[in-house]
Amino acid sequence: MAEKITPRAKDYPQWYLDVVKEAGLADNSDVRGCMVIKPTGYALWENMQRALDRMFKETGHVNAYFPLFIPMSYLAKEEEMAEGFAKECAVVTHYRLKAENGKLEVDPSAKLDEPLIVRPTSETIIWNTYKNWIQSWRDLPLLINQWCNVVRWEMRTRLFLRTAEFLWQEGHTAHATAKEAEEETLQMVRVYQKFAEEFMAMPVLVGPKSEGQKFPGAIYTLCIEAMMQDGKALQAGTSHFLGQNFAKAFDVKFTNINNVQEHAWATSWGVSTRLIGGLIMTHSDDNGLVVPPRLAPLHVAICPLGKNDAERAPCIAAAEKLAAALRAKPRDEFYSFEPISVKIDLTFDKQPGYRYAEYELRGVPVRVEIGPRDLEKAACAVARRDVPGKEGKTFGILLDGAADHIDALLREIQTNLYTRAKKYRDDGIKTANSYDEFKVLIEAGGFVWAHWDGTRATEDKIQEETKATIRCLPFDGPTESGACMVTGQPSAKRVVFARAY
Amino acid sequence: MAEKITPRAKDYPQWYLDVVKEAGLADNSDVRGCMVIKPTGYALWENMQRALDRMFKETGHVNAYFPLFIPMSYLAKEEEMAEGFAKECAVVTHYRLKAENGKLEVDPSAKLDEPLIVRPTSETIIWNTYKNWIQSWRDLPLLINQWCNVVRWEMRTRLFLRTAEFLWQEGHTAHATAKEAEEETLQMVRVYQKFAEEFMAMPVLVGPKSEGQKFPGAIYTLCIEAMMQDGKALQAGTSHFLGQNFAKAFDVKFTNINNVQEHAWATSWGVSTRLIGGLIMTHSDDNGLVVPPRLAPLHVAICPLGKNDAERAPCIAAAEKLAAALRAKPRDEFYSFEPISVKIDLTFDKQPGYRYAEYELRGVPVRVEIGPRDLEKAACAVARRDVPGKEGKTFGILLDGAADHIDALLREIQTNLYTRAKKYRDDGIKTANSYDEFKVLIEAGGFVWAHWDGTRATEDKIQEETKATIRCLPFDGPTESGACMVTGQPSAKRVVFARAY
Repeated sequence: MAEKITPRAKDYPQWYLDVVKEAGLADNSDVRGCMVIKPTGYALWENMQRALDRMFKETGHVNAYFPLFIPMSYLAKEEEMAEGFAKECAVVTHYRLKAENGKLEVDPSAKLDEPLIVRPTSETIIWNTYKNWIQSWRDLPLLINQWCNVVRWEMRTRLFLRTAEFLWQEGHTAHATAKEAEEETLQMVRVYQKFAEEFMAMPVLVGPKSEGQKFPGAIYTLCIEAMMQDGKALQAGTSHFLGQNFAKAFDVKFTNINNVQEHAWATSWGVSTRLIGGLIMTHSDDNGLVVPPRLAPLHVAICPLGKNDAERAPCIAAAEKLAAALRAKPRDEFYSFEPISVKIDLTFDKQPGYRYAEYELRGVPVRVEIGPRDLEKAACAVARRDVPGKEGKTFGILLDGAADHIDALLREIQTNLYTRAKKYRDDGIKTANSYDEFKVLIEAGGFVWAHWDGTRATEDKIQEETKATIRCLPFDGPTESGACMVTGQPSAKRVVFARAY
Repeated sequence: MAEKITPRAKDYPQWYLDVVKEAGLADNSDVRGCMVIKPTGYALWENMQRALDRMFKETGHVNAYFPLFIPMSYLAKEEEMAEGFAKECAVVTHYRLKAENGKLEVDPSAKLDEPLIVRPTSETIIWNTYKNWIQSWRDLPLLINQWCNVVRWEMRTRLFLRTAEFLWQEGHTAHATAKEAEEETLQMVRVYQKFAEEFMAMPVLVGPKSEGQKFPGAIYTLCIEAMMQDGKALQAGTSHFLGQNFAKAFDVKFTNINNVQEHAWATSWGVSTRLIGGLIMTHSDDNGLVVPPRLAPLHVAICPLGKNDAERAPCIAAAEKLAAALRAKPRDEFYSFEPISVKIDLTFDKQPGYRYAEYELRGVPVRVEIGPRDLEKAACAVARRDVPGKEGKTFGILLDGAADHIDALLREIQTNLYTRAKKYRDDGIKTANSYDEFKVLIEAGGFVWAHWDGTRATEDKIQEETKATIRCLPFDGPTESGACMVTGQPSAKRVVFARAY
């Protein structure tokens, strides 16, 4: 199987594309910049959605759905937005085709009075709607989330990480006070952190973005930031405190408890299918995809063995019994209250080694082999995907009790993946005490703690000269003050720089 | 509350809009023809999705996601499609805006070489992708479903029933033989029937469409067809046998088991947020929304009562105990393996009658009232939404055992709603033996069994003269032959006509 995947050490970007392709996660489509999310990739997204949706609902949010199209004029209503947002977007200008001499063409008589933009994000259309929903403090807070597709006309795309169309969720909340909105902004970035760490087994830094990196139109942006195996940063989720910017732009006022009219306070927050890219680049290896059990579409693949039907029959029977025992385990939170997912592989026409490699490639957390010799000992062999090849395989696991063993192993794999990724990430964060040292460390890859004077000018200069950006001003970072590595001006605390996806 | 909802007898279309609005299901948006699905409406859709998705997966399907945009040329590739499909669609012609004198406008230099169509349905883009996925009979069947938004530029829209953008699922399967594809087509319309009857409690007729009513590009279309309370028909779901039309248009060939190249056989099938409109118009009444328990976002609303804190405290405690008992019931299939959903209403500042009316308006299947006098008897009052007002309220239900009582009542309500809707539908189907009789029956509303000669010309004439269309050639209809009511030509069996949404 090795030949299917370019080794990471040889060509990391190619390795990534190979894993995406060979694990059946996504394809490029013929439509520029748009991807096809294949069944295995989509199943990963469904599992992410299920876990996140539960967390959103547990924190009091409900889902709703707003229009795909945004009138062009809305985008200009919020000043900072109009200034800062990317103008690359899909523009609908006509609403009808016509057949002319057997060919289809755009009907010029069906031109829209006002062009419609395919939503790149929905603050404007949603706040235009909230105007009708919010009159009194009794209508607040409004805690709404939307699962949907969005489009940004990216020029350079990469599957999952940057595509013209992608899937995401966007939360849009309205509050009576700035304090409450700020608490929501923080709560949601912590929800993302919990999801990243507990489900994706992906450690993240949490904190505000710098002015230069925040969402235009936000007062500030909080983010979770992960380190990929090549040392580059991935912005994995953002939560914005929007102040009253959108309420003012769309005239959303409410009567407060003292009977005075006020503009509502806003937040928005989102994560996207980009997380699948982050998942891949946090755990996978040269054998293919590695998926943490809590998000795996398939937990266990059981391969009965045997040279002929007579040998295979008892192995299949044992596989079925084990599968039934696994599926019958009580539904619990670790598996998002779904049964353990088990498949019995009956492709006896393929060599066992090929069958095993296929499950490694696809990142199935646990593989079980049941052959005639195992059965002689009433046992099976259990291979864990986080330790590929022979090292991760244990022979002689008694079939009686194997379901418990595998259940415990799945939980152990989840923990191991997080611990390993955390060590990798922590080892990859260095500290620079001069700009020269900084340049060397950035070039070597990874995150760098450095002092910065807090100005946009210095931030821009560093980015221009090193391609590194400020990823985050982490809440939990070192707190000692110092001098900016570029200007020597005072710096309250170190921030984290890296090159990013 | 009565004043909030126009009575059905007075103005049925207005009644429908009132229910949609007052139950908080959807709003019109400022974007022409696009709706905002509000939290309660979206929760209904989520429950529909959960039930359908489970049924799709149990029949071997997986989900995937394909691009929102379709190159214009694709739409012309399948001849029948190009001919028959509605040309009203959203056309993306540009990919960038620019700011000119502080105003946003479409950047004329960013014109696409080929216009992109926002998907009205995805056969073309999906079959263009399948070309890369299907080489051998081993790759078949391909059983894929997609949950997404689609856009059709409808001129006359009505919330849920007909909107420019709507949400739906579209299944697209590829098979090695016509027989297998036809079995799939039938299987999926039966899945829709099961969903409509068992979850929506909405009886449906099942069978093929006439030539005039089928999907262009299909060999034939099977459908489920429901009767609304005003006697009009609602096409609630369709399943198409597409033959090899799309495989030929997009050159999707596979090597069959005899090593011969063949075009693959296709089906597609879909249901949409239109089902929410069907749900409303099957069960709701002049007091508001009625939702079958299996799809209800909230199953039980408990209203503690009392004039002051001292009276209220023990009522609240009893409410909490009952809520806990309901939530603790084992998860089972009736509730889609989710806990029973319970809310305790603490809005003591509102009159009890107002609180009760609010839950009737919103269609919560069961309401429980716990007041000081009920507590004296260790009891509560239980009101069922399917029988509104006093008639549906039972006093003296002992709190000990109330959770079991309510669980059983929810199941009974589900059955009752179906039985009632089925009787209404059956009573609303008449038989016409002449065209004159037919015209009278159609004008009176409801479905009409009639003989038809099987030609498109007669079908068109009937539609033109009576606004009635052939809804379905039901599998389970009467089988006696006769003469077409219009032309007198032979007719093999009666078909069902109605005016439709």
